[in-house]
Amino acid sequence: MNRPGIARSWSRPDHHSLLAPDLRPTAYPARVIALDRELEEHLELTRDARLGRYLDFLRIPSISTLPEHAGDCRAAAEWLAARLTEAGVEHVAVEETGGHPIVTGDWLHAEGAPTAIVYGHYDVQPVDPLDLWESPPFEPIVKGDRVQARGAADDKGQVMIHVPAVGALIATRGSLPVNLRFVFEGEEESSSAHLDAWLEANRERLRADVAIISDTSFFDGNRPAITIGLRGIMAAQVDVAGPAVDLHSGTYGGTVENPVFALATILAALKGPDGRIRVPGFYNEVRALTELDRESMRKLPFDEAAYLELTGSPALVGEAGFSTLERRGARPTLEINGIWGGFQGDGTKTIIPAHAHAKITCRLVADQNPETIFERLRLYVEDIAPPSVLVDVKFLGGGLPSLTPIDHPATRAAARALTETFGQEPLYIREGGTIPVAASFEQILGLPVVLLGFTPPDDHAHAPNEYMNLRNYETAIRTIVRFWDELAVAGDIGSDDEAGGPRYP
Amino acid sequence: MNRPGIARSWSRPDHHSLLAPDLRPTAYPARVIALDRELEEHLELTRDARLGRYLDFLRIPSISTLPEHAGDCRAAAEWLAARLTEAGVEHVAVEETGGHPIVTGDWLHAEGAPTAIVYGHYDVQPVDPLDLWESPPFEPIVKGDRVQARGAADDKGQVMIHVPAVGALIATRGSLPVNLRFVFEGEEESSSAHLDAWLEANRERLRADVAIISDTSFFDGNRPAITIGLRGIMAAQVDVAGPAVDLHSGTYGGTVENPVFALATILAALKGPDGRIRVPGFYNEVRALTELDRESMRKLPFDEAAYLELTGSPALVGEAGFSTLERRGARPTLEINGIWGGFQGDGTKTIIPAHAHAKITCRLVADQNPETIFERLRLYVEDIAPPSVLVDVKFLGGGLPSLTPIDHPATRAAARALTETFGQEPLYIREGGTIPVAASFEQILGLPVVLLGFTPPDDHAHAPNEYMNLRNYETAIRTIVRFWDELAVAGDIGSDDEAGGPRYP
Repeated sequence: MNRPGIARSWSRPDHHSLLAPDLRPTAYPARVIALDRELEEHLELTRDARLGRYLDFLRIPSISTLPEHAGDCRAAAEWLAARLTEAGVEHVAVEETGGHPIVTGDWLHAEGAPTAIVYGHYDVQPVDPLDLWESPPFEPIVKGDRVQARGAADDKGQVMIHVPAVGALIATRGSLPVNLRFVFEGEEESSSAHLDAWLEANRERLRADVAIISDTSFFDGNRPAITIGLRGIMAAQVDVAGPAVDLHSGTYGGTVENPVFALATILAALKGPDGRIRVPGFYNEVRALTELDRESMRKLPFDEAAYLELTGSPALVGEAGFSTLERRGARPTLEINGIWGGFQGDGTKTIIPAHAHAKITCRLVADQNPETIFERLRLYVEDIAPPSVLVDVKFLGGGLPSLTPIDHPATRAAARALTETFGQEPLYIREGGTIPVAASFEQILGLPVVLLGFTPPDDHAHAPNEYMNLRNYETAIRTIVRFWDELAVAGDIGSDDEAGGPRYP
Repeated sequence: MNRPGIARSWSRPDHHSLLAPDLRPTAYPARVIALDRELEEHLELTRDARLGRYLDFLRIPSISTLPEHAGDCRAAAEWLAARLTEAGVEHVAVEETGGHPIVTGDWLHAEGAPTAIVYGHYDVQPVDPLDLWESPPFEPIVKGDRVQARGAADDKGQVMIHVPAVGALIATRGSLPVNLRFVFEGEEESSSAHLDAWLEANRERLRADVAIISDTSFFDGNRPAITIGLRGIMAAQVDVAGPAVDLHSGTYGGTVENPVFALATILAALKGPDGRIRVPGFYNEVRALTELDRESMRKLPFDEAAYLELTGSPALVGEAGFSTLERRGARPTLEINGIWGGFQGDGTKTIIPAHAHAKITCRLVADQNPETIFERLRLYVEDIAPPSVLVDVKFLGGGLPSLTPIDHPATRAAARALTETFGQEPLYIREGGTIPVAASFEQILGLPVVLLGFTPPDDHAHAPNEYMNLRNYETAIRTIVRFWDELAVAGDIGSDDEAGGPRYP
């Protein structure tokens, strides 16, 4: 599962925990819309075999971070390649990356139709703490609607939605309505260490119109959701230097600038009392929220009181004029991630510190660019810093925001497919965080990204007793079939950059 | 030597290094004013013997911080007690303190005359680095006008100014013009660990009108100086709490208050662009500088450019309307001594920190009170803190400022004595720091303190090759004799509190 954030190791609360309990439906109203009769019959006939395959996949302990499981990762890759071949995918290969292999394959005979890249990953998280599992993590069990095992949701379950979907299409129609390229990596849970280099090296081969990433969750219960926006990020450090060494605050106090005070005045000037970021030009490229955007966010079931309680903060605050969910997903932010300078021990040390430092990250939204934003921050900080200190603003990294609008043809195709198969319109989620894999597809291949995931919001990904809802799983296979049909007639879904080149850096 | 500062271990540059080299006279113009003819003859006759005693004292390695020298400390105390007795001081005792002993004695037969406490210390600093000494630290040598040895200046040399001064008076007149109580401690270089308790326990016995502390330096060359002001101190910590735990800045950024940002806004609001402290009421009790004060500070030889270079800061700044020396010694300050919160490592961690902290000290001037100032700071911080965080302001300690005005009768008596013996008027120094021993005498005994010291500003106290200027030493003995005569007719020099009780806490 893609966990938003520049630092993937940072664990965040799951989505579901943001919701008040009473908002979590327990009844499961899935309604499968009739597909082609023959295709639906095929899916019904193969249901047990499909579940068996899925459980077999879950039995392979492909933990990518643990060296002793390297062989299991390769076994999972080869097992998956065999399933793609069985499904009718062509040019299936287990490609070397320097780390765990990437499984690829394609089907490119839908002349004139769009080409989509399907991304997922076959590696899984470690299983600690083992004693909290109700059943062994690599011995999958089916309890009612649940398949419980490590990887049941993240992400083997979602990979095993795409494979039977394409298999059923090829088996019943002999063809696909769109062109597909599969990219299933084996290092998503260990920072996708080799993915970017592999994408770079294979950019020409990977020309496509859209990337479909199936590694996200629903927002609430079993109501379908599409993640349309991810925030980008700009990371910086501000270093303020004053005296050459720490000075005695009695002997020198009152005569030289205190770098911590200077830093405080700089940081305090970065945001106004209205929560607006004061860096000149900061909002210049921010794409305004449309009424459609705002309406879709208002529709999200969201309990502010429960969210506030979850944070443990005294109050929810932020940029004036925007709702909490808008501020969280659709507006840029500036946060101080850390600060230090001078004495931090018990008691008192009577010094004027020689220097002070702060870490800053901005979350960016379309169409902000991290390097542009950094430059504006740097200029502003240099401008407001008192001349009695030296200030240095360093760029620590950045990532572009991602936004595939609600009315993008690929988003609309996905929404139609979800509505027809799940029986209700999807929610549209703007994630506050940054999903590096999405940025990789956007930046390296220049593709719009549709984040189309199907796991329950409380799927326990990365935690004990991870599970997938089996009814959602079956419905999702129908969704994917329908999605390819919808995408085939969706009109212009091409990437912004026709050359398929990187839009960033 | 008293090193200003709440943390005595903090080493600060010596005074002399604040001065441009061209301001340091090399010629030595000392001029000894004729005293009583008989007394001066006595001093001349005993000169060699006096020097011999002084050198004997310096040979005792009474390093108070090193346990292996505990016996030497006691030997120095007993040696000193013998000298006091020889001089005619009465009730001489080596008093137990729980640490190194305190040497006491008195002469109280000047009926109707003021009573002064004379403070000094017989312990010395360690001698590292030994290889930088030109001669062994406890084998004193006389080179021209210099006596070089550990303790030659700090503070054995100054103790051995007072003892022969009183000896000469008693030897030639049979009496003293004032009543004196001697308090020579043995732990000044190890934080005076037992002094306060001993003063408390002996408060009744130690009734007096003024305390004379001889443990400071001249400001420049061999021009005499009186330290008339020491700043007090108020130490506090500000703790700001936001979310219950560090939150992911992508998932939560823009919706909750960032405690580091809140702390920065609080700190930035503590001082204005004019350098004035914005805490309401902060300056209420500040005694305004008189024209005499300002004139005396203007007279101090002070090279701003050299001072700036010494600090290593880009500029000298501070409260508008006051000179650098005024801001440093005669105006209160607010400094942030340290700050911390969130991530301080390399790279980036995308968090909203749960909490942030700052250490603050204010240097206070007469008649500010640390507890009053703390209360005003606390109320102000609580007032300006955004309601979206919790803020806690803690008192970490305080010390009263000390100011014995230039026109205080005891100061004037000292100034007359210095002018007559050194041939030029003294400079008046306001130290930016806080000398704990002075505060002890002020606070516990309720006495005005006159800081009357005679060592050269570049005496290398605490460093290798510590020295005393022998001509200043001899002149200083005459100064002390003259001072007691002047003090006897100085008028009302009594403490503020006639009961001799503590003015603080």
